Amino acid sequence: MTTYVYDFASGDAGMRDLLGGKGANLAEMTRLGLPVPPGFTITTEACRHYLQSGGLPPELTDEVHEHLKAVESAMGRRLGDKDDPLLVSVRSGAKFSMPGMMDTVLNIGLNDESVVGLARQSGDDRFAADTYRRLIQMFAKTVQGLDPQPFDAAIDAIKAEAGAATESQLSTEHMWKLVDRFKDLVLTGTGKPFPQQPSEQLWQATEAVFRSWNSERAELYRRREGIASDLGTAVNIVAMVFGNLGEDSGTGVAFTRDPATGAQGIYGDYLTGAQGEDVVAGTHNTVALTELEKIDKASYDKLLAIMETLENHYRDVCDIEFTIERGTLWMLQTRVGKRTAAAAFTIASDLVDDGLISLDEAVGRVSGEQLSQLMFPTFDGENLPAPLVRGIPASPGAAVGTAVFSAERAIEKAQAGQDVILIRRETNPDDLGGMIAAAGILTARGGKTSHAAVVARGMGKTCVCGVEALQVLADHAITADGHTIREGDEISIDGSTGAVWAGRIDVCPSPVARYFTKELPADADRLIRAVDRLMRHADASSRLHVWANADTGADAERAREFGAVGIGLCRTEHMFLGERRQLVERLVLANEEGQKAVLDQLLELQRGDFTEILRAMDGLPVVIRLLDPPLHEFLPSIIDLSIAQATEPTTENEKLLTAVKRLHEHNPMLGLRGVRLGLVIKGLYEMQVSAIAQAALALKQEGLDPRPEIMIPLVADVTELHLSATSARAILNEHGVLAPVGTMIEVPRAALTAGDIATEADFFSFGTNDLTQMTWGFSRDDVEGSFFGKYQELGVFDTSPFATLDTSGVGQLVSQAVKAGRAAQPELHLGVCGEHGGDPESIQFFHAAGLDYVSCSPFRVPVARLAAGQAALADKGGEKSDSR
Amino acid sequence: MTTYVYDFASGDAGMRDLLGGKGANLAEMTRLGLPVPPGFTITTEACRHYLQSGGLPPELTDEVHEHLKAVESAMGRRLGDKDDPLLVSVRSGAKFSMPGMMDTVLNIGLNDESVVGLARQSGDDRFAADTYRRLIQMFAKTVQGLDPQPFDAAIDAIKAEAGAATESQLSTEHMWKLVDRFKDLVLTGTGKPFPQQPSEQLWQATEAVFRSWNSERAELYRRREGIASDLGTAVNIVAMVFGNLGEDSGTGVAFTRDPATGAQGIYGDYLTGAQGEDVVAGTHNTVALTELEKIDKASYDKLLAIMETLENHYRDVCDIEFTIERGTLWMLQTRVGKRTAAAAFTIASDLVDDGLISLDEAVGRVSGEQLSQLMFPTFDGENLPAPLVRGIPASPGAAVGTAVFSAERAIEKAQAGQDVILIRRETNPDDLGGMIAAAGILTARGGKTSHAAVVARGMGKTCVCGVEALQVLADHAITADGHTIREGDEISIDGSTGAVWAGRIDVCPSPVARYFTKELPADADRLIRAVDRLMRHADASSRLHVWANADTGADAERAREFGAVGIGLCRTEHMFLGERRQLVERLVLANEEGQKAVLDQLLELQRGDFTEILRAMDGLPVVIRLLDPPLHEFLPSIIDLSIAQATEPTTENEKLLTAVKRLHEHNPMLGLRGVRLGLVIKGLYEMQVSAIAQAALALKQEGLDPRPEIMIPLVADVTELHLSATSARAILNEHGVLAPVGTMIEVPRAALTAGDIATEADFFSFGTNDLTQMTWGFSRDDVEGSFFGKYQELGVFDTSPFATLDTSGVGQLVSQAVKAGRAAQPELHLGVCGEHGGDPESIQFFHAAGLDYVSCSPFRVPVARLAAGQAALADKGGEKSDSR
Repeated sequence: MTTYVYDFASGDAGMRDLLGGKGANLAEMTRLGLPVPPGFTITTEACRHYLQSGGLPPELTDEVHEHLKAVESAMGRRLGDKDDPLLVSVRSGAKFSMPGMMDTVLNIGLNDESVVGLARQSGDDRFAADTYRRLIQMFAKTVQGLDPQPFDAAIDAIKAEAGAATESQLSTEHMWKLVDRFKDLVLTGTGKPFPQQPSEQLWQATEAVFRSWNSERAELYRRREGIASDLGTAVNIVAMVFGNLGEDSGTGVAFTRDPATGAQGIYGDYLTGAQGEDVVAGTHNTVALTELEKIDKASYDKLLAIMETLENHYRDVCDIEFTIERGTLWMLQTRVGKRTAAAAFTIASDLVDDGLISLDEAVGRVSGEQLSQLMFPTFDGENLPAPLVRGIPASPGAAVGTAVFSAERAIEKAQAGQDVILIRRETNPDDLGGMIAAAGILTARGGKTSHAAVVARGMGKTCVCGVEALQVLADHAITADGHTIREGDEISIDGSTGAVWAGRIDVCPSPVARYFTKELPADADRLIRAVDRLMRHADASSRLHVWANADTGADAERAREFGAVGIGLCRTEHMFLGERRQLVERLVLANEEGQKAVLDQLLELQRGDFTEILRAMDGLPVVIRLLDPPLHEFLPSIIDLSIAQATEPTTENEKLLTAVKRLHEHNPMLGLRGVRLGLVIKGLYEMQVSAIAQAALALKQEGLDPRPEIMIPLVADVTELHLSATSARAILNEHGVLAPVGTMIEVPRAALTAGDIATEADFFSFGTNDLTQMTWGFSRDDVEGSFFGKYQELGVFDTSPFATLDTSGVGQLVSQAVKAGRAAQPELHLGVCGEHGGDPESIQFFHAAGLDYVSCSPFRVPVARLAAGQAALADKGGEKSDSR
Repeated sequence: MTTYVYDFASGDAGMRDLLGGKGANLAEMTRLGLPVPPGFTITTEACRHYLQSGGLPPELTDEVHEHLKAVESAMGRRLGDKDDPLLVSVRSGAKFSMPGMMDTVLNIGLNDESVVGLARQSGDDRFAADTYRRLIQMFAKTVQGLDPQPFDAAIDAIKAEAGAATESQLSTEHMWKLVDRFKDLVLTGTGKPFPQQPSEQLWQATEAVFRSWNSERAELYRRREGIASDLGTAVNIVAMVFGNLGEDSGTGVAFTRDPATGAQGIYGDYLTGAQGEDVVAGTHNTVALTELEKIDKASYDKLLAIMETLENHYRDVCDIEFTIERGTLWMLQTRVGKRTAAAAFTIASDLVDDGLISLDEAVGRVSGEQLSQLMFPTFDGENLPAPLVRGIPASPGAAVGTAVFSAERAIEKAQAGQDVILIRRETNPDDLGGMIAAAGILTARGGKTSHAAVVARGMGKTCVCGVEALQVLADHAITADGHTIREGDEISIDGSTGAVWAGRIDVCPSPVARYFTKELPADADRLIRAVDRLMRHADASSRLHVWANADTGADAERAREFGAVGIGLCRTEHMFLGERRQLVERLVLANEEGQKAVLDQLLELQRGDFTEILRAMDGLPVVIRLLDPPLHEFLPSIIDLSIAQATEPTTENEKLLTAVKRLHEHNPMLGLRGVRLGLVIKGLYEMQVSAIAQAALALKQEGLDPRPEIMIPLVADVTELHLSATSARAILNEHGVLAPVGTMIEVPRAALTAGDIATEADFFSFGTNDLTQMTWGFSRDDVEGSFFGKYQELGVFDTSPFATLDTSGVGQLVSQAVKAGRAAQPELHLGVCGEHGGDPESIQFFHAAGLDYVSCSPFRVPVARLAAGQAALADKGGEKSDSR
């Protein structure tokens, strides 16, 4: 038979799935002998049963009854007893913390009789009345779903009657009046008197907590945080203890270390004569936890000892809630404490020094996300003025610029050299150009999955969205309190906090980012030293190498500074933008002879391009991808040409329009690109390979060690690679240059036939961007801003498959290709150069799949190095945990 | 050690790979004891050695020498003997017949001495001289690569000198003169005298044949026919026999049955006193083979007996070449005879009656290609006028219409109800609309892989291309002999023969096509009876069912007539064209409320659509695919709107343009389609499922047996299917209608995660069109007309992967998904509804992969039924042949 109820004494911290986080940790503390009020947990399984069938499991009644008895006997009180009643709280607690999202009911067990007993036992009549009216108020709202407004109105009426400014000024008598009024409100609202049976209160409250799992706000929160919707919540039934029983009572929250900075020493707040909700509500003035030493030294010392026990036991910073009832300390909750990115690094390093964890573990205690947060520039945190408005922090970073209100203006001003912040009510795909041009993006509508948010994160661009207090019009915006932002006004936005300021706020470059490009200074602060320590250990542990994607010498230098040991993707099409675009246009539109002339011109230019990047990466590999232009990007716009021809027709224009129409593709992503173009335009790839060979030769003559590798894009069939690689190798031979020739694996068919393709390749580089596009049938340009938000809401995926590798689909192709490729060609070198190469979760997969390197944008190199180390250490740790 | 030479007595018909077709069959006839001149074959392996290394294998010399000795001893003559010389021919012969593509040299072994012996032995001085000059002429051209023109000029000069009108009028003396002149020409051309060493002649001729494998015309032919380029050719060295030794000599070609009609009885041509080349050249008037009975009864009787032996032995129609030298019959070649589509069916059936083959084998003797040829309409073959011009038959069928010279005019006239033939110099993707509108397509440029050809075949549209004799101008075309075709002129084109006529030629509907839609008439002709017999046996043998793709009741009825036992794909987006397009446009552009109103309207219309098709297929399954529109096809053209807005701006137009721009997709193929649209537009799929359920209910009430199945398109992840299928099943339940709910497998990820997806699906239908597009990264609309021709030339593939399933890439996904799907859900029903469902080669794959049915266009149903039967019989046959 299924067990639906666990006593705190019979669970442990490992049972989060079944007991929820709160319940599991209460059990763990109980097992440690810490002073936890007696109680038990109704499992998430009971919740799932309830949510599926609409009713509680029948066997639950007996189980709860039995455990309740144990609590009663431990406390020496009975639920509903008219002389000395036991009160309990009914608290939600899911596997993953969902603060404030679900319901809790306190003081269950009071009724017209037992309230008298409570008054007698506590010796505090007013306290008893207050506790009862709180139960009725909370029960009515949470369990019975009544409108809370009349209850608030009743309090206001009593206060007016009594001439009291605050509730605390109400007399005992007034409190009893309030109890009566609240009972009347329940009778009116539900047609029935307030339930007097404590067990009825208990069951109704339990069901209410279960129901609250599916409340709208809880669902929204789960979608946002990527928490599965079928987990359900547990319910914790805990004997009530009271921090509001006078000056020798109180309540507090604490961390075993400072969660903001990681500084050692306890950190928390305490409030005398109050309950936990008063601390959380922020309606009372708390004192620093250290003050408790003066107020109640015994409890303080005991608390310190408990906190030390907890930190040693959990081997991490703990976050606790406690209550002191008339000099007795009770632990109400603990969990591993959340912390800032900076604190995560210093704490991890300190815990090593304290002997609590190993360096291996310390590397696992920080995340790539945290490291990348530390690398973004920020606004100076100390002296910030109050923001003008706040929105949703959608894509981190600090951006400052002049306001613009259309994509066109953003592009114009950016081209004129200005930093601009693009402000839109909401963005859509037409704004893409403007978003690329802008330093930051600000919208009035939409959340973290809105078009603006998704696209900005994809571009690594600062974005604040959903600033509801901002009314965005055609050429200006107005805040709720009437401040107007006009085009040209300077504004500053913080994508990490959601703050928006009028005017220019100074941006501080990140000291962590600066650290990565320099030697460790002797006077480095604790954070930098912690980062340095963990990064060194990650590097020393990792098997995967980290390369970078870079198209210019400058990018390559930056990548090298950040620790890249190769260039995994040099996109030659980026060398054809700007003024050279016309050459490509001519190349595509010309006949064979015309093409020859263009190619001769391009050879000179490309030789220079390659010399620059090979020089910057002297001694390290540089994988140069031969041209893979989406054709349409190099042709004049068919719409512009059509309009021009319709308004002022010319013969030349007509000729061009005809040619562009001929080359126009319905789906350029799946059109004449990559190796296809290389095979169709005679001499194109040959020109590029010659330029690479000539650049390498020249550098060698200077005594350098250029190490180019040639990569053929968009191969779907071994014959395509055979033709282009054979020609490339012949040209390299002619020049006497040795260079590996390999291919992107970015078309599903290439992955499926990797065994064949490997016979012609020195290396594979997985192009997981295109591979994701084709495997899912997603045109990234179209879908991310169109229905990805909806898909995340619907739970099709939590994270965009363009951000984190879809291991079950795309990953399957990668693993399959690695296996078949290596089987056919054991020397095959394997890497990845899609954006996933910089994503920690994906890097873990690439490590497990057996790749040799990941290549990512220069700025992500440190994150990738950390993730590579973590993946290797997790392997090691995984082996250990298996042997337990 | 490798054996490079096989005597005719030591090979057999099974050794085609090594001996080539000609050599293997000569060996087989030798083994049968038929009179084959002595000889031997140098293998294709020697050729491959030669082509790779540039030289003959060293051990070949000894081997050839030894086999030559055997021939000499068999003939009692020696090569180069001055008294009684042996002459041999050196004949090419590859695995697959490549008629006229490679070289042959006759009369090897003659020199200034042996020619005297030949004269003496033959008693014919003129014959000897003529034979010698033929050797020199052929050797100079073929082996030495000299220009043939001076040799022809020398003959003309001699004829003029002799006052002779033809070569046969030249005297013996003139022949000798010609020998001298030819020898002079060789000396002048090569700087060396004509080689007198017979062995030197032999080796040079052998190398020349090997080299001719890589001649330009041979390469072109292979590419066109899809013959691998690394096979190489064999060389046959055969003792010469002479049909030109007077009236008791002669030569002929024959078939054991009529290859045009399949009629029983021998069929062929005979020419007295001539060599084979004279018959082939068509320069002499041959007589019917039956005349030989009068000319040389003994040889005739012997030939008839041999032909019977051959047909019994090969169990098929044979095509032979023979020579009679002074009353002695020699067999020079045999092979299984090529035949027309009609003959293939009647012969296969007749051979069963003759007891030569089983009915199982007979089904394997015809091809889907032949059946589909028989189903095209034709021009009346008997009374055809001479065509105006001829081109390349690129896509079969007979089309008649008025000429148009632009896509625009084609569309206009077609919309006005006219049949048009679109005439273009060459077509490009802009012509697509016109090609769709036209009854037939005619181009002046390009071969079978040109844009016009590829696209027309894809559409099943009649096409003649590469009519070089036609000069196509802007609004008319001129033939080489000055005939002008103007817009509006009627023309007729035959895509099966390449003929083009001015004026209207009557089109005969195909009697075979008519047969499929009717009961077999009692007076059916031999062809129809043969087709009926083989189709019945194919149906009885097959495991795969054949369903059809149909979107209307009329299409469904036609499919049923052709033998479809279900509709595998009813595309509901086809129900939204025409006047209803506006509704879809409104649906897409409206807000939620507006959408609701449109959906209500659509529900009515769709209920009617579904009622019609379910009624037509009463009692048979109809798989209805929920809407999968490429969004852009339902929206106004962004180019037209932009032009309109630029020229005559209106507010309404601007609003529309903004909306269209917002929805505009860069790659609509990979955009907001299929289930994505179904999940984004609230109520869309629900409306369609309701319409299906209502239609089914209404038909049931009429007492019919509607069997709808609901198919969700473009699923990539199980959650998409879960959401849409759950909703569909709920609606079906509400209506009390039972219907399977399944999904297309057309996105690579769906195939990769088929095990998960199967848990939510009652059936899979492989959409191999889209699956091919995404697996290869090919946008069909763009690539077929753009670089597919080039890719076929380069050998990336022989056949477009859209025509025949790419088994190694796309097929791998299909097999994988079948396996994983069935493992997860043993009851899963599996089919395919891409165009590959009508392609015989692909059907063989689907049979092997274990699908339950294939679904194809109604017209292809008979072909698919035949292929399904063949696939099952090949399985059976495969088992048999294993046990041999």
